[in-house]
This record gives sequence, structure tokens and C-alpha cells, in this order.
Amino acid sequence: MMKIAFLGPQASFTQLAASQLFPKEELIPKINILDCFNDVAHGHVDKAVVPLENSIEGTVSMTLDYLYKTPFITIEAEAVMPIAHHLMIHPDNNAYDIEKIYSHPQALAQSFHFLDAHYKNVQRKDFSSTAAAALYISEHPELKRAAIANQFAANLYNLKIINRNIQDFEQNHTRFIIISKRKEQYYNNQLEVLGEKSGLIITLPNDHSGGLHQVLSVFAWRNMNLSKIESRTLKTGLGNYFFLINVVGKWESVLYENAIAELESINTQVSFLGNYKEFLLES
Amino acid sequence: MMKIAFLGPQASFTQLAASQLFPKEELIPKINILDCFNDVAHGHVDKAVVPLENSIEGTVSMTLDYLYKTPFITIEAEAVMPIAHHLMIHPDNNAYDIEKIYSHPQALAQSFHFLDAHYKNVQRKDFSSTAAAALYISEHPELKRAAIANQFAANLYNLKIINRNIQDFEQNHTRFIIISKRKEQYYNNQLEVLGEKSGLIITLPNDHSGGLHQVLSVFAWRNMNLSKIESRTLKTGLGNYFFLINVVGKWESVLYENAIAELESINTQVSFLGNYKEFLLES
Repeated sequence: MMKIAFLGPQASFTQLAASQLFPKEELIPKINILDCFNDVAHGHVDKAVVPLENSIEGTVSMTLDYLYKTPFITIEAEAVMPIAHHLMIHPDNNAYDIEKIYSHPQALAQSFHFLDAHYKNVQRKDFSSTAAAALYISEHPELKRAAIANQFAANLYNLKIINRNIQDFEQNHTRFIIISKRKEQYYNNQLEVLGEKSGLIITLPNDHSGGLHQVLSVFAWRNMNLSKIESRTLKTGLGNYFFLINVVGKWESVLYENAIAELESINTQVSFLGNYKEFLLES
Repeated sequence: MMKIAFLGPQASFTQLAASQLFPKEELIPKINILDCFNDVAHGHVDKAVVPLENSIEGTVSMTLDYLYKTPFITIEAEAVMPIAHHLMIHPDNNAYDIEKIYSHPQALAQSFHFLDAHYKNVQRKDFSSTAAAALYISEHPELKRAAIANQFAANLYNLKIINRNIQDFEQNHTRFIIISKRKEQYYNNQLEVLGEKSGLIITLPNDHSGGLHQVLSVFAWRNMNLSKIESRTLKTGLGNYFFLINVVGKWESVLYENAIAELESINTQVSFLGNYKEFLLES
């Protein structure tokens, strides 16, 4: 059985993702994104699942920074999960009795219009995570409380969902990646495949105007289509920066390898994070 | 006196930023980033301060999305604040008495090595925000508790800082923007200026390979240097996306206006967010 680190706590959205990606492996919660990277780097775990975009549980720009800083890290897969918040209570309680609603401030904020329409006069209280709120509800059946949390927390703590999908915006989603040192491609025929891509981290030699344009020329004439590009500065003010770039589709070895060779010949540092599939998860 | 919305709660890092940017104006906490944008859009406030990068209090990719979605929004300034966590107690208590340390999970995680070295056997407890932890400490002098929070929270709640700058990494920082509908440039001679830039949001007509390269060509031959580029997809899977781009330096009207005209002539949608200065804040 493999050991898979994930950004915790128990019943976090990342665990909800990790449990779908690795239903049969040992899942180990970590308190921060750095620990997930370090445990993979030092071989304490086989792989890790961390958020890449839009998480309410971690500063995901940290994920970009550690992808840049951690040697030999590769991406095995990307996974997209629509964000779904559910209102849940202890099964001994009744929906019309609720006196207070607990959750992470951002989950409360993301459910604002639903709460305003249906629980206008019910007091709301911030918890450090949606999972912590769900755990509290499960341990206090004598209190008339509800939590906003995910499906996984409802299952784990045996809570009853009284309102599903109470988030205000349908299109919101969180994006996760599986990281490891194995240069493998993750595959799971139980999950819908949304596409295939490659990840590259590119560091420009210096801050010269048009440098990024020169880099993109290398991709453009090869018809290598980019689906993501994100720059990160390395210092507080202006200064050096690196880019995470996603190239759509299969990695065509000769043509694409030449692209990397060309980039390196103009003093650009290129780190190839892998070619991998993008999966759709359930929320 | 102007009304300035900021991403709350009271004593959040965003308030610490807003209080330096607008020391004499009325600061109004908002529960989420969307409300900050809406209040500016509907004229309920004059301006708002929201995180753009690296916040532990908000999903800042939301800021990008609302910059894209909210009509007539402009950026008046950008501000960078090094992240500094301090350990603080009620002034009636003693440092060597501490039995528990409270804070936001990410602040606890970011101070992990300090806590491990100096308060190894002291229990840690998650709070929904660093500010909530500081408030709790101030209200419970009878408990031997400490909080990890910022300087502003220490001042606001009259707490005594017993250890300064306990965060594990020096280089960490948060980036904020001032948004409004006024097309003004914010200036404050009390703050150090780090640079000047312009913000543009660019939407490509369709997902064609090399589209971004074509866009960047327009900037490259004009020697318009880019300091940030970030793409955001509009849907769960592959599909349309938009870019936030920062162009370094003063906005040179004729040459740069022509760049926008050229981009529009190739069916690219361009939204000019403003030309503004970048300031350094204290943490």
C-alpha cells in the first residue's frame, strides 16, 4: 500500500480529492503544503495531493513556489473538483431547530445568498476549517447547530445533509495536482478524463523586455497550445521571476524536446514537470 | 472622509494594509472579496483594498475573476507587505506561563519551526483567523494563552508581543491592490515607492495555438516589459481564458494606446485597469 500525503486536516477538500484519486492507499494529512513537498522529496511518502488553484484551505501560490524550489518533483496528474458546500446537522437534530451555523469564513461567504434567503436570522460562527465545524457538530448532538462542509465530512462524521449545493456560484472549482519523484503518469479508469497536458517551469535569464515573448515563440511555431501561464516573482519588489506553463495535449517527443533544447540555448532554465492527464472529481 | 472597504475581519492583514494606505479614512470590513468589488461597483464605498497574491485570508484567484467580471473597475495602486507573525499575550500574563497557542492554521504552519524550537510541548489550536485568536486572548486574561497575529491586532487589542517575526521564511509577502471606479492614481509620500506598472486584462478570441504569442508580440517590439502574467480559465475543463498582464513603467500614451488598438484589431478584448505605483508597506 502506498503512502499518500495530502494537505489536511481530516475531511478537507484535499482529502476529498485524494480519496477519489487513491481510494485504496494510506492517506496521511499534513499541516501545510511545504510538508507535503518535503515528505515526497525525502521519500517519507510515495506521492502527495496538494491544491493548485482556488483552495480555501491553503495559499496555493505556495504550491507554485515549491514546484519551482523542490528538486526532482514531477506532476503525475491534475484533478478538478467543483466546489460544493452542503448544510449538515447531527442526525438526532431537526432542520427547523437550527440556532447556529458553523463553517470556515470563506465557506460561509460562498453560501451567503442561500443563508440570507433561508437562514437569515440564524447566527453564523467562523471555524478554522469546514472539517473542524463538521467534527464539532458530530460531537455535540445536544446543541442545535449546523455545519457547512463537504460530502466527505458528512460521511466521515455521520452527519445528515439537509441542503445540498448551497454555494452561490455554480462554476467555482478547485484544482489539485498529484506530485511525486517517480516520473510516472497517473491513470484511473474510474474517473472522467478532461484532457492531457504538460507542465513546465521556465526561468528567464534576466528581466529583459520581450524575454517571455521569445520563449513563447519557441512554442508558437510548433503549434504548442498553452492552457495556463502564471508568473511568480522571487522577491518583494521587481526582479527575477519564473513561469509555470501548461502545454495542451500529448508530449510529442522529438518536436517538443527540441523546444526545450532551444529554450536552454537562449539561457532559459527549463524544468519539465511531466506530461499528465486532467481528471474530473466529484464534489 | 472617504469610505474604504477591505477584506475583513477586523485586524486582518488586509486591514493592516488598508490602515497604512488610508490612515485618515473610514475603513469598513467586508466578509468576502466579492462584496468589496460590489460595494465599489454600486458606489457604496469610494475604494476597496483586497489581496491580489498570497493571502491567508482570501482565495485571491477570486480577485482576478472579479477584476475580469466587474465593469469600470480600475486599480489605483498595488502594495506589498512582508508577512510577519508575532507571538502575543495578554499584558497581565507571562511568557513562561503559556499553556496554549491560538492562531489561523496557516499562521501556525508558517511559524512551525519557531514553535517547535521554543514551544514544543505547548498545545496549538486553530482559529478562523489570526485576528480572532488575538481578540480571544484579549478577552480572556484569566487563561494562559498566546496568539500568533500581526502588529495591528497587537495594537488594536492591547496585547504584549513576546516574540517578533516568528515566521519560518523571511521572503514571504502578500500583495494588495486598491480598486475604485475613479480612474485615479493613488499616491502617498509616507510610503516607499517600489515601481510603477499598468494592469491589463486580455481575453483571447478563441483557444487558438499561438494566440498568446501574437498578443505578446504587440508588447515585445515596443519594448513593453511584462512583470506579471497570469491566466484564468473560465470553466472547469479546457476552454476560454483570460490573462492579467502587468506592463512595467509609465504608460507611454501614444505608443501604448496603439498597442491596445492593435490588440483589439485582432479580436482580442482588452480592459485597461490603470497605470499605478507599487508601494512597500510595513508588517
